[in-house]
Amino acid sequence: MKINLEEKFTKINNHWHPYIIGELNENFVKLAKLKGDLVWHSHQEEDEMFVVVTGTLMMDFRDGKTITTKPGEILIVPKGVKHRPWTNGEEVQVMLVEPKTTKHTGDLKVPQTVDKQEWI
Amino acid sequence: MKINLEEKFTKINNHWHPYIIGELNENFVKLAKLKGDLVWHSHQEEDEMFVVVTGTLMMDFRDGKTITTKPGEILIVPKGVKHRPWTNGEEVQVMLVEPKTTKHTGDLKVPQTVDKQEWI
Repeated sequence: MKINLEEKFTKINNHWHPYIIGELNENFVKLAKLKGDLVWHSHQEEDEMFVVVTGTLMMDFRDGKTITTKPGEILIVPKGVKHRPWTNGEEVQVMLVEPKTTKHTGDLKVPQTVDKQEWI
Repeated sequence: MKINLEEKFTKINNHWHPYIIGELNENFVKLAKLKGDLVWHSHQEEDEMFVVVTGTLMMDFRDGKTITTKPGEILIVPKGVKHRPWTNGEEVQVMLVEPKTTKHTGDLKVPQTVDKQEWI
């Protein structure tokens, strides 16, 4: 029941691919390594929480604003809000808590889209 | 939408009292400062996640085991499992993600029970 985040992160060798590390009611707790840019997308039915573990996460919004989130900070993107995550070139490690039904890139299907939910 | 944990923790002046800092689908994201012992309790319908931000959290279980959780680690207590959190005398800061319906000390009502859900 105890999960060491650093140990789990060593098992991830790709970017923008969230892996499940825990189950929490109707949610999965996931970890992902981020580097570079992801596409614009939104989740119509689900809020999304990014807990930044290492690095600096940038999130663009359609109003032109970019929110910068660092370790010790969390970012909640409300349902329906278009967002685009990116990094400054350094790898960013994040923890996510998402409903089991959340689709990786919302209703958008792009090369980076992860369909299969895998545990590590 | 961005929340600084350290800044929120400065607003908490008591122990074993979770405060809401965010909303995430059918859950609340909460912060709490822990020191000393809480009572044995369980949550029949809800798993509970403890993200340790500072300090060392001890959790006793009915099989006699105690799990120690530190920053960089998370602990998920499955629904129905009796547990008793305590600390080694130092203050522990934790982040919780709980269904909005979760009761603080399960079906038990004790002096430390927090009935009112407050935002900070």
